[in-house]
Amino acid sequence: MITRLSQLFVRTLRDDPADAEVASHRWLVRAGYIRRAAPGIYSWLPLGLKVLAKVEAIVREEMDAIGAQEVRFPALLPREPYEATNRWTEYGPNIFRVKDRKGGDYLLGPTHEEMFTLLVKDLYSSYKDLPLSLYQIQTKYRDEARPRAGILRGREFVMKDSYSFDVDEAGLEASYQAHRRAYIAIMNRLGLEFVIVKATSGAMGGSASEEFLAIAESGEDTFVRSPGGYAANVEAVQRPLADEQDSTGVPAAHVEDTPDSPTIESLVKLSNARFPRSDRPWQASDTLKNVLFMLRNPDGTRAPLAIGLPGDREVDMKRLEAAVEPAEVEPFGEADFEAYPGLVKGYIGPGALGAASADKVRYLTDPAVVPGTRWITGANQAGRHVYDLVCGRDFGSDGVLDVAEIREGDPAPDGSGPLSLARGIEMGHIFQLGRKYAEALGLKVLNSNGKLVTVTMGSYGVGVSRAVAAVAESHCDERGLSWPRTLAPFDVQIVPAGKDAAMIDYAERLALELSAAGIEVLLDDRKASPGVKFTDAEMLGMPTTVVIGRGLASGLIEVRDRASGERTELTAEGAAEELIALLRS
Amino acid sequence: MITRLSQLFVRTLRDDPADAEVASHRWLVRAGYIRRAAPGIYSWLPLGLKVLAKVEAIVREEMDAIGAQEVRFPALLPREPYEATNRWTEYGPNIFRVKDRKGGDYLLGPTHEEMFTLLVKDLYSSYKDLPLSLYQIQTKYRDEARPRAGILRGREFVMKDSYSFDVDEAGLEASYQAHRRAYIAIMNRLGLEFVIVKATSGAMGGSASEEFLAIAESGEDTFVRSPGGYAANVEAVQRPLADEQDSTGVPAAHVEDTPDSPTIESLVKLSNARFPRSDRPWQASDTLKNVLFMLRNPDGTRAPLAIGLPGDREVDMKRLEAAVEPAEVEPFGEADFEAYPGLVKGYIGPGALGAASADKVRYLTDPAVVPGTRWITGANQAGRHVYDLVCGRDFGSDGVLDVAEIREGDPAPDGSGPLSLARGIEMGHIFQLGRKYAEALGLKVLNSNGKLVTVTMGSYGVGVSRAVAAVAESHCDERGLSWPRTLAPFDVQIVPAGKDAAMIDYAERLALELSAAGIEVLLDDRKASPGVKFTDAEMLGMPTTVVIGRGLASGLIEVRDRASGERTELTAEGAAEELIALLRS
Repeated sequence: MITRLSQLFVRTLRDDPADAEVASHRWLVRAGYIRRAAPGIYSWLPLGLKVLAKVEAIVREEMDAIGAQEVRFPALLPREPYEATNRWTEYGPNIFRVKDRKGGDYLLGPTHEEMFTLLVKDLYSSYKDLPLSLYQIQTKYRDEARPRAGILRGREFVMKDSYSFDVDEAGLEASYQAHRRAYIAIMNRLGLEFVIVKATSGAMGGSASEEFLAIAESGEDTFVRSPGGYAANVEAVQRPLADEQDSTGVPAAHVEDTPDSPTIESLVKLSNARFPRSDRPWQASDTLKNVLFMLRNPDGTRAPLAIGLPGDREVDMKRLEAAVEPAEVEPFGEADFEAYPGLVKGYIGPGALGAASADKVRYLTDPAVVPGTRWITGANQAGRHVYDLVCGRDFGSDGVLDVAEIREGDPAPDGSGPLSLARGIEMGHIFQLGRKYAEALGLKVLNSNGKLVTVTMGSYGVGVSRAVAAVAESHCDERGLSWPRTLAPFDVQIVPAGKDAAMIDYAERLALELSAAGIEVLLDDRKASPGVKFTDAEMLGMPTTVVIGRGLASGLIEVRDRASGERTELTAEGAAEELIALLRS
Repeated sequence: MITRLSQLFVRTLRDDPADAEVASHRWLVRAGYIRRAAPGIYSWLPLGLKVLAKVEAIVREEMDAIGAQEVRFPALLPREPYEATNRWTEYGPNIFRVKDRKGGDYLLGPTHEEMFTLLVKDLYSSYKDLPLSLYQIQTKYRDEARPRAGILRGREFVMKDSYSFDVDEAGLEASYQAHRRAYIAIMNRLGLEFVIVKATSGAMGGSASEEFLAIAESGEDTFVRSPGGYAANVEAVQRPLADEQDSTGVPAAHVEDTPDSPTIESLVKLSNARFPRSDRPWQASDTLKNVLFMLRNPDGTRAPLAIGLPGDREVDMKRLEAAVEPAEVEPFGEADFEAYPGLVKGYIGPGALGAASADKVRYLTDPAVVPGTRWITGANQAGRHVYDLVCGRDFGSDGVLDVAEIREGDPAPDGSGPLSLARGIEMGHIFQLGRKYAEALGLKVLNSNGKLVTVTMGSYGVGVSRAVAAVAESHCDERGLSWPRTLAPFDVQIVPAGKDAAMIDYAERLALELSAAGIEVLLDDRKASPGVKFTDAEMLGMPTTVVIGRGLASGLIEVRDRASGERTELTAEGAAEELIALLRS
């Protein structure tokens, strides 16, 4: 097929969109692939839709290859099933809710566990019907608090979601591994450099879960890797408890005046000057920082949470948010301090926290805070700290919460070496859900002994529209997009670089010959200067551009490779054959 | 590809769904093509999705063939553009409205005129960019008051909508005709018997519009045709005004007691007995019936409407609804009579109606009510009627409204003969919108003289999911579905009718050979009785079934044609080749 640029509904834009933070957003808009309709909501223009369709086709092929069957659910879903699993409430403000003309409650589906569970319950009843994997490629909705980066994190987006149904754990494991293999194939075919990391299950529930992250500086997810093969989203890193210490000989706890030491740094300095320890200097990691938050539950109630962690670490907000989901984290404000007068701002210590304290503020401590460890911490009096407070001897907590920031060089939890950090775009997420949804909605089948057993499920998602952005993100430069052959809207762009009738004739003939061979050709037939055409060709990003210019007079045309920038001359005579071989390679 | 029925996610059901009124609904559910998720909202199971995809492919090909370019808009749309054209209000309760977490107003798009207009305004600015036709195949939403008949009238559905942009009327006419041709091709390829009829433009606005109706008893639309080629949706029929009459010699109007004549029939009887006219007996068509309604405007205000029409005709509610859109029609209730004490229930006459009357109730009359016509009608006093009330001489109205029922045999408005009535399913609707949307949203381009001119638009829709139902409706019988080859989920169903290893081997081999030739094969590999397999095969409705039964021992297999019921024997040896030829024919 030949598409003429003069006819194609596209305009390249000179300026970046005002809200563009990342390269894919900038170029997909400027090159006329997508267009913003509302915050986090985009329209697909002809070029973008072609790429989206190619991503969809790849995903569909790989899902079909593992025997998953395609279905399609509505996006507008009734409240009741989501009520049964409590997600109607748990999603809080993150879903779009709709009332119909009769006052019935609906939601725009963010994911479809409930609906698939009910469908299988509706039609199937025996272990003989299983295993079963169903999938859909469908438009989904999430009312993101911070939609960003164009289609990288939108509020309306296309996802492939699939669900597996098995009678037992071994079956679930097999279905999970099949999806894992399919996802690896998808990521490879999309041309994405990726990593598979341990993930948290979040609102989805279930046990094991892994994410497929496309490695990208602009990604929202941070992940860690070790030389020994450990890999996890930082949200999923679980540092082991530190070794317990022998605190024999640690002096009894003593409260001291610590004027002018509002920061950890100043506190350490003052401590070394006035209360030196015998074995070594105090350091930030000897202080116990107690940080307060308010958690807002999906039902609207709020409760305080204190986190005790070594003074040399900050709370990683994304790790905290992931840990407390579906509750949302809010700052502990002035009004909250007034409501808990036992908490002295800046000098909060374990004595004022925990189930045994007057205010009963829930108190969770870092894995580094174990019996025998010795701390400098707040004395619950303005201007005073307590020294030699020993965990287990002098204080305890309500439990462990590992939400401190992970740092480059931290040891991997499994002992496989120091961690390095990088960022990625979440492209896929696979979950072993287990029986959560099947139990809530009563999905049981007869097993081979004629006994009713609850089905065990997996849930698997790939961001289809997001993939277009993720690929663009890693396939662009300062001049525009640069698509891999598998996803480019057209295989080749033909640019007659001049008004010469011979050039135009040759370009038309070449376009016809390539098209006849099944090559998708974009022919720049516009009455524009060669400069404009070259700039646009680079921005649009077809992998190969053929330039028909002055060289034609001496029987030569030029082939430009968008990714490498390489330019090759071809003999005009018989160039079609060489090009066909190149474009199919 | 071979699909094994033992693996396919499908269950045929013995019973009709409780709410099934029409055949397509019954069979699509019972044969496992679709499944209800909520009122008017359906999920597509694997078989249904395959048919839907084939419809989509046909529609896409025909749109591409007229040079329309595919894009895809979001379904979740911001309020503002719909506010600019007043449709946010006009749609009333017929659209789903959504508030996001920040309180922003959105709607689930029922059609996208505004968005396309803005997109073209965004990117194009010159007459050189036009003509342009854009389309999308996309999920749409309407909060129907009465969703019915499964996917025939759903609240979430798939539509192809396209929009044309031209600088002048000639351009619009050409774009309109191109779409008209494409729609004819689509209807033919879908195997639908159809008629193109004049239609009303309704909420869409604009001038010329035509509907493509698939002829079906179960259709919601009634249309008329004349021998001379007139064809219109009844909603769009405009009867011409009757000829004015000479009323010289008609006695002066006189009010009479008409006891016990609550109906038109009893009134005519009493009139002939007590007040006979000299030239001929009174008949129902001599009485002027005045019918009251309340119109609810989209902004919530209500206003009464009185319709005067000959006593032998009823108001056709669908014609009335179409005529007053976007207002909705409500009954004129007891409370309304109390609010308008001048209206005497059962005896309402023109004297109490119209702009000149005390209550100022808007009064519109049928095209039969023209100057010189002579009527018996209510005297605005209980138990009394007025005789010889002459239009023009004794009363007038505020205008003409043609919403009386159309009857078999009525003359066509264009004089092309008597009308016949039939029913159909609205499959497509094409509109010459003109400049309504371009004006409201400021879509202008420079013309060849460098002057800014407002673009003229067309809007064109095809029901894609509805097509699946419409085709099923005309392709089924009392045993189930019977798909045309172009749309069947599989080309052939192979049924080994027995447990014999030879039958199963043969079936497997045949499936492989057909599949290798690109035939889509559904192989019934279930351990079920031949009876169950035959019943299911007929319900599922593949156009051809190959039965491998006892005949195989004597070298014969059977080919069954679902539509005709014809059974043919084939020599088992070399049957694949014959079948391939048959299935490709």
